[in-house]
Amino acid sequence: MAHGGGGRLTAQLISKIFAPAFDNSFLAQQHDGALLRVGKERLAFSTDSYVVRPLEFPGCDIGSMAVYGTVNDLAMCGARPLYLSAGFIIEEGFAMEALWRVVQSMKAAAEAAGIVIVTGDTKVVDKGKGDGLFINTSGIGIIEHGHTIAPVNILPGDVILLSGDVGRHGMSIMSVREGLEFETTIESDCAPLATPVMALLEEGIEVHCLRDLTRGGLSSALNELAETAAKEIEIDETAVPVCEEVRGACEILGFDPLYVANEGRFIAFIPPGDTKRALGILKRYSVCANATAIGFVRNPSTSTKGLVRVKSAIGISRILDMLSGEQLPRIC
Amino acid sequence: MAHGGGGRLTAQLISKIFAPAFDNSFLAQQHDGALLRVGKERLAFSTDSYVVRPLEFPGCDIGSMAVYGTVNDLAMCGARPLYLSAGFIIEEGFAMEALWRVVQSMKAAAEAAGIVIVTGDTKVVDKGKGDGLFINTSGIGIIEHGHTIAPVNILPGDVILLSGDVGRHGMSIMSVREGLEFETTIESDCAPLATPVMALLEEGIEVHCLRDLTRGGLSSALNELAETAAKEIEIDETAVPVCEEVRGACEILGFDPLYVANEGRFIAFIPPGDTKRALGILKRYSVCANATAIGFVRNPSTSTKGLVRVKSAIGISRILDMLSGEQLPRIC
Repeated sequence: MAHGGGGRLTAQLISKIFAPAFDNSFLAQQHDGALLRVGKERLAFSTDSYVVRPLEFPGCDIGSMAVYGTVNDLAMCGARPLYLSAGFIIEEGFAMEALWRVVQSMKAAAEAAGIVIVTGDTKVVDKGKGDGLFINTSGIGIIEHGHTIAPVNILPGDVILLSGDVGRHGMSIMSVREGLEFETTIESDCAPLATPVMALLEEGIEVHCLRDLTRGGLSSALNELAETAAKEIEIDETAVPVCEEVRGACEILGFDPLYVANEGRFIAFIPPGDTKRALGILKRYSVCANATAIGFVRNPSTSTKGLVRVKSAIGISRILDMLSGEQLPRIC
Repeated sequence: MAHGGGGRLTAQLISKIFAPAFDNSFLAQQHDGALLRVGKERLAFSTDSYVVRPLEFPGCDIGSMAVYGTVNDLAMCGARPLYLSAGFIIEEGFAMEALWRVVQSMKAAAEAAGIVIVTGDTKVVDKGKGDGLFINTSGIGIIEHGHTIAPVNILPGDVILLSGDVGRHGMSIMSVREGLEFETTIESDCAPLATPVMALLEEGIEVHCLRDLTRGGLSSALNELAETAAKEIEIDETAVPVCEEVRGACEILGFDPLYVANEGRFIAFIPPGDTKRALGILKRYSVCANATAIGFVRNPSTSTKGLVRVKSAIGISRILDMLSGEQLPRIC
């Protein structure tokens, strides 16, 4: 199970089995999607399968998640999302009404995200050989600017912006799954992120890299990027917004919010001079209302290459490791 | 289960649940993939999930099938396959060696088909919530000619070419699954079809429509196209090549080869004047060595719109209906 958790074992599975077989310059980008050239155009292409349990949870369901998740991966490539495919693997006996609700939710999400579902596929597997419904979506986006937004472009001195508070999606799923009741319901942050990202690009912010925070949370995203870019990253723990409900639930359950999954948050690497203007642009959008700078990139020494440091409230600096094992299985 | 069989119930599921929600001009094409415009380029985009059981069978496995299946859908849009995504849903406990074999098979298949796997995703589900391995692939192809190859362009008088003998894939799976032993092993016809299709287009054959034969076999493909194009189709049963092993197995098991699944065969609708030249081109490729003309398209009366007729060996004409219910579940 931990091989699917988005942490160290997922990274190992990719580096041991998939990367050697499918070795090419596109996968070597280690990006949320592939940056491609098709004829005269630059495109982004991304895929994700969604196996989240339960299928419906506060603030979201598998349908809107399957749309927003892939839309967000395209946006993280600096691409304007255009077209989406949808592949359904349905377990025999899955209720038609439930399928109908999911499909309606996908329809609404696609409209909200400005993407069109253009092609699809349906397979049915025997009872006991699936889990209700799995959905794969793949997306195509167009890159309308001249920049390459990718981990390799992260520079020493870059400021790291975080688009909002972390941990909502993971704790929302957790509370439903475990039947926990808090004073207020924790809603998933599941949301489309292309509009604020396109605004940053259109207004000329020099975006070096983008990454949405999903499985493995903020810490895994930072660790992946520090490693791919061969840089050192330092963040200020007190600068990372965590809402009260998520903080409380994490304390009770023994989770670190930096490792908890999100579905509507991203980090952006930009030159320090653009920080104020970029935050001003992001804060225009409600999904980025709590956007803030959380850290920066350092030129590493040989021993600190790929390292992520976090400075705590009392000023102590510790190493923020990648998620080991699994925290919450089937979170997306 | 029958909702996934590729026959009448699959068509109902699409028309009742998916089509009303995702109503747009792309899905309305009812094609193997979507024909899109991205900037200055014309693209095809297609997706398929593969849930075949068993994962390995004579002549093919889920890995090469997942590559060839989507490559073929792109080719049927008249597109040159360029890029592929791969999404893996792995059941907890699935052997790493088996995953390795499948991935190696995908690598070889992608090389053979001239497509590059550029982006991927891996999810792991609990034991008992999957069935070893499901794979989704989505593909992007470029359309380099000015024609639109689609069901709507089928014309009365068009000749229907079939690229080879039918029924191998379905009977191969069936014989493995049921532990049947025939004198010779029936191998799946699973193969990439883009090269012969590109040759037809490059040599100026006026191709009106293409369709690969998968779930539901030749009969479902003909019925879908007759319906979408609102035409009448007539084929000559004796002209449809069926190899001796498949014919024998079908007789023993009570299957009609016209309904049995294929993974490396297609039909092409072309003007009658191009027939001889098109067959000459196809026969250059071993995968199309048995290509032949099997029928033609008629302008229908009100009552014969969407009808497929088949003329038997003794000259009797009967209606070839779409597959009802399921014949072989999880064939792809």
